[in-house]
Amino acid sequence: MIQKLITNIKKTNAPIVVGLDPMLSYIPKWVLNNCYGEFGLNTKGAAEAVWRYNKAIIDATYDLIPAVKPQIAMYEQFGIDGLIAYKKTVDYCHEKGLMVIGDVKRGDIGSTSAAYATAHLGAVEIGGEKYAGFDEDFATVNPYLGTDGIKPFVDVCQEFDKGIFVLVKTSNPSSGEFQDQVLSSTGKPLYEYVGQMVEKWGEPTMEGDYTNVGAVVGATYPEMGKVLREIMPHTYILVPGYGAQGGTGADLVPFFNKDGLGAIVNSSRGIIAAYKKEEYAKFGEKNFADASRQAALDMIQDITQYL
Amino acid sequence: MIQKLITNIKKTNAPIVVGLDPMLSYIPKWVLNNCYGEFGLNTKGAAEAVWRYNKAIIDATYDLIPAVKPQIAMYEQFGIDGLIAYKKTVDYCHEKGLMVIGDVKRGDIGSTSAAYATAHLGAVEIGGEKYAGFDEDFATVNPYLGTDGIKPFVDVCQEFDKGIFVLVKTSNPSSGEFQDQVLSSTGKPLYEYVGQMVEKWGEPTMEGDYTNVGAVVGATYPEMGKVLREIMPHTYILVPGYGAQGGTGADLVPFFNKDGLGAIVNSSRGIIAAYKKEEYAKFGEKNFADASRQAALDMIQDITQYL
Repeated sequence: MIQKLITNIKKTNAPIVVGLDPMLSYIPKWVLNNCYGEFGLNTKGAAEAVWRYNKAIIDATYDLIPAVKPQIAMYEQFGIDGLIAYKKTVDYCHEKGLMVIGDVKRGDIGSTSAAYATAHLGAVEIGGEKYAGFDEDFATVNPYLGTDGIKPFVDVCQEFDKGIFVLVKTSNPSSGEFQDQVLSSTGKPLYEYVGQMVEKWGEPTMEGDYTNVGAVVGATYPEMGKVLREIMPHTYILVPGYGAQGGTGADLVPFFNKDGLGAIVNSSRGIIAAYKKEEYAKFGEKNFADASRQAALDMIQDITQYL
Repeated sequence: MIQKLITNIKKTNAPIVVGLDPMLSYIPKWVLNNCYGEFGLNTKGAAEAVWRYNKAIIDATYDLIPAVKPQIAMYEQFGIDGLIAYKKTVDYCHEKGLMVIGDVKRGDIGSTSAAYATAHLGAVEIGGEKYAGFDEDFATVNPYLGTDGIKPFVDVCQEFDKGIFVLVKTSNPSSGEFQDQVLSSTGKPLYEYVGQMVEKWGEPTMEGDYTNVGAVVGATYPEMGKVLREIMPHTYILVPGYGAQGGTGADLVPFFNKDGLGAIVNSSRGIIAAYKKEEYAKFGEKNFADASRQAALDMIQDITQYL
């Protein structure tokens, strides 16, 4: 699966992923009002607004980008209606040729991790037929439970040709509380040890120069990104934290390999809610998706100029 | 919310929780076949079987126990149909007076963690009305992202009178890979530091002797449970790993305080699939729920004899 992502990245010359993390406050009033009018002032109406908002942004950007990263929490908060909108979004992205990284941050042990992997990357078998639950191409996974939590995901990835990105060093201010703790056994921070394990977990899944077990490392920590890039030579890095969280194009260089591959950078709010920023205000609420297209173009330019 | 759980525990004299983690292989053939016949040999039929299986077990045990812990992964693998069964299960448990600990192991940062908290413990507001997504009473949460990941859950708990259980030391064999790493800063394992943080995160949520921020500590590590019990005097401990994973009643004593409170022990397979075990085989497939009732009674006896 990682090679399909790399092919898409090369084709678009855009190592970026658009985070489809719709909050109600991002969605223009006219979209909300249309949906509330047609479907009701309730979770059905809200979920329909989320879906239409996504669809417009996908339609305006799909030819520029290799992949999207919907954040399932933003859908899950609307219950079943929200998850139906999530699934519609995943399916529509596939129709448009986009890869989908499900930002689900799941993680458990044994048969439970296997069930999460089945839900997002595999399929249940009923009466000899296979039924995929959400059917993303990649999923993000939390490593706190160790190998017992990751191995079932890797097994499902192998069976269904899918991939995962494991949280290593997250982009948020408090990520250091546990992740930066120096371990007595190694004299190095925990995130480096997690990085080593990610590289090891990926070994059986090599495709070309990279494995199907990637890592999440925040743009907000470029020095640590540099070290992790070296520790995990065959690991693709998903980089959140660009834009709204403070990371800039110049910060991203250490996450990439010399060939310009090895990393893919996410922006969510900066692209999907671009029309709310002063620099894209000229597009207006009506043309919010055009603002997203321009923001995607600007982000690609900002990042590729350094590679 | 923790006081409601304690009231339920005292009323039943049963510090246990039944893990509603249905796998298709647990469900008796006759239940499956009925549902496939009525709803189709597909995820709709499978999800209906999961729901009927749960309902029978709830009906047979609700007067004995204070709470259930549905494992959402087991539902999520059936996609939307599975999550509808999850929601029906949560609602039915509430109808029967049971508390519901959603074993969702969610965890992210900032507005994303807030969205997960809203999905499971809170409600979205649309047009001045509140809509709860899944509406459990407690949710399990992963601490790897630090305070930024936990604080939004605590805020929602405060607003809606709910609670969380944070993973501290999990029950699985590989939980030590990261959790047991000794930190240079403290000379103690990571899980102890996470435990200290859990106690601290809970401070603003005190209700009587306990907070609404609990901890997950596996029955398979009683020595560590003893230390954590001391480090987290106001923290309720949810203890998985009893029964099928190897923990016994005698192992559980260190997790409790002297008053017999402070811990609640989960069993999933050992109760919901009891009819498959030799000691309960006499009930047969037809009376699988009666086997679950007997297994719950036996578990309560096994644990309370030591308290």
